[in-house]
Amino acid sequence: MYSIRPVNDLFLRACRNEPTERRPVWMMRQAGRYLAEYRAVRERVDFLTLCRTPELAVEVTLQPVRLVGVDAAILFADILLPLDAMGAGLRFAAGDGPVFDHPVRSLDDLARLGDPDVERDLGYVFAAMRLARRELAGAVPLIGFGGTPWTLAAYLVEGGASKNHGRLLSWSWEDPRGLARVLGRLADVSVRYLQGQVDAGAQAIQLFDTWGGLLDAQRFRELALPALLVVVEALRGKVPLIYYLNNGAHLLPELAGLPVEVLSVDWRLPLDAVRKVVGPDKVLQGNLDPTALLSSPARIAELTDALLREGEGGGHIVNLGHGILPQTPPDHARAFVAAAQRQAPAPAGAARQG
Amino acid sequence: MYSIRPVNDLFLRACRNEPTERRPVWMMRQAGRYLAEYRAVRERVDFLTLCRTPELAVEVTLQPVRLVGVDAAILFADILLPLDAMGAGLRFAAGDGPVFDHPVRSLDDLARLGDPDVERDLGYVFAAMRLARRELAGAVPLIGFGGTPWTLAAYLVEGGASKNHGRLLSWSWEDPRGLARVLGRLADVSVRYLQGQVDAGAQAIQLFDTWGGLLDAQRFRELALPALLVVVEALRGKVPLIYYLNNGAHLLPELAGLPVEVLSVDWRLPLDAVRKVVGPDKVLQGNLDPTALLSSPARIAELTDALLREGEGGGHIVNLGHGILPQTPPDHARAFVAAAQRQAPAPAGAARQG
Repeated sequence: MYSIRPVNDLFLRACRNEPTERRPVWMMRQAGRYLAEYRAVRERVDFLTLCRTPELAVEVTLQPVRLVGVDAAILFADILLPLDAMGAGLRFAAGDGPVFDHPVRSLDDLARLGDPDVERDLGYVFAAMRLARRELAGAVPLIGFGGTPWTLAAYLVEGGASKNHGRLLSWSWEDPRGLARVLGRLADVSVRYLQGQVDAGAQAIQLFDTWGGLLDAQRFRELALPALLVVVEALRGKVPLIYYLNNGAHLLPELAGLPVEVLSVDWRLPLDAVRKVVGPDKVLQGNLDPTALLSSPARIAELTDALLREGEGGGHIVNLGHGILPQTPPDHARAFVAAAQRQAPAPAGAARQG
Repeated sequence: MYSIRPVNDLFLRACRNEPTERRPVWMMRQAGRYLAEYRAVRERVDFLTLCRTPELAVEVTLQPVRLVGVDAAILFADILLPLDAMGAGLRFAAGDGPVFDHPVRSLDDLARLGDPDVERDLGYVFAAMRLARRELAGAVPLIGFGGTPWTLAAYLVEGGASKNHGRLLSWSWEDPRGLARVLGRLADVSVRYLQGQVDAGAQAIQLFDTWGGLLDAQRFRELALPALLVVVEALRGKVPLIYYLNNGAHLLPELAGLPVEVLSVDWRLPLDAVRKVVGPDKVLQGNLDPTALLSSPARIAELTDALLREGEGGGHIVNLGHGILPQTPPDHARAFVAAAQRQAPAPAGAARQG
């Protein structure tokens, strides 16, 4: 069904900071609305049905590999699925984003949530993972993912998206120990969910911390980091781990010591500045401003060249600094991927190969 | 009508980095929904009517002086009022935030907007400023404010609030010179509007850059800074200028050289870390996490003490790192203000006084 190219494991080698002929490239949210082929699938089914139907989830997972030429696939899913499996009652209201019928705003609310059997309640994700690996047949690696406990709590406590996260943050000040129990439960479910993804064939795991940047460094260490470390330590050494933090320039010094292979950073700081803060051992992923893909193919090529220069001096997986925007012309996404793949080996990369 | 205390000019002296007996304190959005007395006024009139009725705008402007005891008043208004005066057609849809009937998405759209006569079209703000000065009778200084051109453009181009600012940022990549013309028009109107506030009695001006942090440093310099500097240079030396940047830890090095007296910083970085980046000449304003006011009076007092320690070593105006949240108990706001005012003179302040 899909043309099989020679095995491309650039992404996995780059995750492990091994020498590569060139740097791999993929895009966060690469299976998404900017592709007409994705929108065609979504016209047939709603978002959650798409997530829960392995054949369709795999179809959209593979679209960017086939249509855009990325060096890695990421399974189509949503970070909120395990919360639904816990009984929080996830719905997507048209235009309004996610809504939970049973938000958790007290330890009583937490007690009312169930303890999911991930094979039974999230088995559709693992089935999609197995099917995607089979369809990919080694063409490119397959990434699994989840939200960090803090970011999952941000949605679960608020009952959906929020502007100021008043309920979550209020709880964090009034009863940090109680909130730590919520985060502990989310870490426990996340470990089993992500281990299930690895068992089903995920070759790397990306942890999305959309809301970690709400916290200053001290509160990040106290509130968000303990549960994050539970997840990281449980998966460590099994597959490469990628940690994505949005809006966290002020937290970068904290991340140097996080035991993950790859730090995926947003577009706000140049990679060479990030590298100075986090040190040489971390592979960096990112970080073209996704709005740059709204410019022109020629400008995208220039900006990608500049990004490649900024990424020299250490391991680098080319990506955007945030998810690709729905209004991005597919040709512009292709221009980004092509520019990244056209690169000559970077001097630093050449040195590492020699 | 309001009890007149001895003249308190702590805020103005602190803006000028002069010695003060103690550091002044006020809160962004201090005239707002957390006060029952504000909500009582809003039950009688809608938001824009409140802005446009000097007697009512002054009533809510003075509420936090009388009810919470802050050391400065800030005139009740909205940064979007000058855009409405240009003919953009501002409405506040219930629960949905601001909406513009005539957004500017091209230079043709820009040409269709009018050139406001600020005395005619925004005179209600100046009338409120004069009345507020009269009512305050020197009790505390009165602050005026506006949005930066970049932040005003963010709303004007998107037609209201936006999640990813795709239209603004797309324009910034495709036609930065065209967008610069929009920003230039906004700077021109802002200068006349803010000068009008100064003429009417504003004793300091705060510029709110809610969306500057969307840009990396290079794009901030290219896109946002030129129009910001037009405004700053026009007002410089007339009254102290305060620049508030939300979510801009990555831009701090840019701000050291901005010719304003005061940098108001969000809660994400401790003030001592900010001081290291921007140098000793800037007065810092901030930066307690506004969600900390959801904790308890005792905890608020502890956190305010810690903030005061972090603010030592240079000029400091105590404030929150973002606007006070509507769900804040008024007693918690009072606990913050009282804790800030209870301070012993800071060692650094004492040294500057000696």
